[in-house]
Amino acid sequence: MKRMNIGLLGIGTVGGGVFELLKSNITEIQRKTATDMKIIAVADKDIARAKEIVGSSIEVTNDPFKLVADKEIDVIVELIGGTTIAKDLIIKAIENKKHVVTANKALLANFGNELFELAKKNNVTLAFEASVAGGIPILKSIREGLAGNKIEWVAGIINGTTNFILTEMREKGITFAEALSEAQSLGFAESDPTFDIEGIDAAHKLTILAGLSFGIPMSFKDVYVEGITTLEQKDIQYADELGYRIKLLGIAKKRDKGIELRVHPTLIPEKRLIANVNGVMNAVVVKGNMIGPTLYYGAGAGALPTASSVVADLIDISRSSHVPPHGFEDNKIDKIPIYKIDDAISGYYLRIRVSDKPGVLAEITKLFGDKKISIDAMLQKEPKEYESEADIVILSHLAVEKDINVVIHSIESLPATIGNVIKIRLEELSK
Amino acid sequence: MKRMNIGLLGIGTVGGGVFELLKSNITEIQRKTATDMKIIAVADKDIARAKEIVGSSIEVTNDPFKLVADKEIDVIVELIGGTTIAKDLIIKAIENKKHVVTANKALLANFGNELFELAKKNNVTLAFEASVAGGIPILKSIREGLAGNKIEWVAGIINGTTNFILTEMREKGITFAEALSEAQSLGFAESDPTFDIEGIDAAHKLTILAGLSFGIPMSFKDVYVEGITTLEQKDIQYADELGYRIKLLGIAKKRDKGIELRVHPTLIPEKRLIANVNGVMNAVVVKGNMIGPTLYYGAGAGALPTASSVVADLIDISRSSHVPPHGFEDNKIDKIPIYKIDDAISGYYLRIRVSDKPGVLAEITKLFGDKKISIDAMLQKEPKEYESEADIVILSHLAVEKDINVVIHSIESLPATIGNVIKIRLEELSK
Repeated sequence: MKRMNIGLLGIGTVGGGVFELLKSNITEIQRKTATDMKIIAVADKDIARAKEIVGSSIEVTNDPFKLVADKEIDVIVELIGGTTIAKDLIIKAIENKKHVVTANKALLANFGNELFELAKKNNVTLAFEASVAGGIPILKSIREGLAGNKIEWVAGIINGTTNFILTEMREKGITFAEALSEAQSLGFAESDPTFDIEGIDAAHKLTILAGLSFGIPMSFKDVYVEGITTLEQKDIQYADELGYRIKLLGIAKKRDKGIELRVHPTLIPEKRLIANVNGVMNAVVVKGNMIGPTLYYGAGAGALPTASSVVADLIDISRSSHVPPHGFEDNKIDKIPIYKIDDAISGYYLRIRVSDKPGVLAEITKLFGDKKISIDAMLQKEPKEYESEADIVILSHLAVEKDINVVIHSIESLPATIGNVIKIRLEELSK
Repeated sequence: MKRMNIGLLGIGTVGGGVFELLKSNITEIQRKTATDMKIIAVADKDIARAKEIVGSSIEVTNDPFKLVADKEIDVIVELIGGTTIAKDLIIKAIENKKHVVTANKALLANFGNELFELAKKNNVTLAFEASVAGGIPILKSIREGLAGNKIEWVAGIINGTTNFILTEMREKGITFAEALSEAQSLGFAESDPTFDIEGIDAAHKLTILAGLSFGIPMSFKDVYVEGITTLEQKDIQYADELGYRIKLLGIAKKRDKGIELRVHPTLIPEKRLIANVNGVMNAVVVKGNMIGPTLYYGAGAGALPTASSVVADLIDISRSSHVPPHGFEDNKIDKIPIYKIDDAISGYYLRIRVSDKPGVLAEITKLFGDKKISIDAMLQKEPKEYESEADIVILSHLAVEKDINVVIHSIESLPATIGNVIKIRLEELSK
């Protein structure tokens, strides 16, 4: 098996996530890459805390410059953030012919142009999927999946903090200040929330999205930025009455003579999917001239979602040109058994036609109890005038299919039941 | 510039789309790949029609076997479909060391395992992004973007025909038969719609999704399949009353002892994004153990969206290991001007506080007329008791920002206006 030695700069939230991901999923990753990815050294200013996380088998230092010079290390993962020391470290790493993976949007939005040039000159990869929209593979989708298109526009909810605040303002009818303080107490906003609420973080990400969508240099200074701090409750309500939601959008749009780059609160028709993206979740709509509008949705921040993108970049580097058709190494395709439908588990919608007699519902619910299947919701329709039959609709909790089939068979055998029971499966798709 | 010679097998709907896309977007594609992609030969049984589409400069034949043996051709794009001749052609192409790009889900679901093996043996790529969910880059997202995750489940609306039928049944209260015949007259369903409405097409795609998500062989014969033909209007209504939508889902779920693979009508809570994917659109939810649920949405069929994925595969092949950071060649990064916010175009929400006097609204709307900005919607709130002021909310059609600012300035100068006008931008995000 190939070996990839990783040096991790910064083991805070995201760095800890990368460490945890590689520990949990290393076998699956080896199935996909035939590469043993290993963090062999960590640099963090809090050495004690870092050692607590990674244990004693991994080198820990408070000197990140040691790592970017370390000959044993193939790839540097930069998760320190900011545009000062992180920049110096990435430059040194690249000059030392190491690939670099970073989540640092501020750095790329401000200095991406020179860093990309330096990486090219040194023939290494500078990868940054995690810099925009956390775990959503939006950069790869634009750069590769939609590469056959001319991108016409991109519009995204690319800051989770502000989307949480706007969602709370709308759902609870509270002010911006109240929603911000709620976000802070839940850990969704920092004690100094300026970068998020003033739209600067979104502008960094929009800069990168626009660079990849249109093939233009990173142009952060040209982005128009307006945050959500002055937004009033009243306007959210009025927008609602008119059929709109207000979201902080980053918008990059090609026009005949140039490109619009802007971040600001925006009314969106409520019937658009993106208008219904709530809480801390992110989503980006990309409009290609051939595909039309497409949308990408998922967690835009957090330790493990962001780590998901960092590791995707590591996997890209390890695969270089070879991506097998399944995305798993050919000798790692497993013959995992496929369940028969009788053994599948889901919720169920049952529609039962019954004679309208007393006690029928009790008989039916007892049959569920006998098989230990819980009922989640029920709808009993009154018989229409001159009718003596009625529909009962039952939603069940999760059950094995063969068990629900026994219940259905028993229901159909009741004297009050008319015809067959209609069964449709139900999935919450929540976790 | 590198050259990629393409042989196109089948120039029907999708084949025509690929031809059109390469013609329209070739300059942009060259910016991204430094490769001149050229369809140099087309095989189709209808030679006359094919010649009409491609003109006289491209070779047209009715013998596809000629193309897969042609030494000038680097990549074969197979868009004939089906599992007989298409299979023979792909085998021959691979044996002749040509890369193959295909949209043929039936073929891959049934014979993918042997075809992948053959491609590996011959050291060529067999690419198939277009086989699932049309233009949505869902396979790349699973195989690469989410590669750091163990995939826990996938659930998708992966057949546009049935989603259109279900949407019409719900929105218009019509029967399955009525909705099907509407779909047929609009060209969204074929005259023999069996493959779509019985869930077979979705099962083909689910087979491929499961193969890539879990690293298992293509297992079409193990998929449980149930179509939408027996679905009654009543059940759609009852589901609605309970807060659910019914969608035809393809579901692949990992459990402790194996995998569930099933296609069937499914109730989904209406608050999930995927429950609100309507008409012919597709969407796939992928749940990774690190990223959580993510969603990918877009056009799942049609000439140009499907061509978008075919060409993405061609671009992948042309790039082999080299994907530049922007996705554009480094010497093709253009310095396109960025518009100042004054020159940006959007819709606007304006909230105006006014003294409640006759004629105010007329004065305000006249100011819009003077600048030729149309009003899209208006909301006039009655003053509360004991109040002499009221809010007027106006949504404008598209306008240049500096023009709306002139209107705002004029409104603020009216004697009846109190304080400043609140302006929030509005985007339809529809086209």
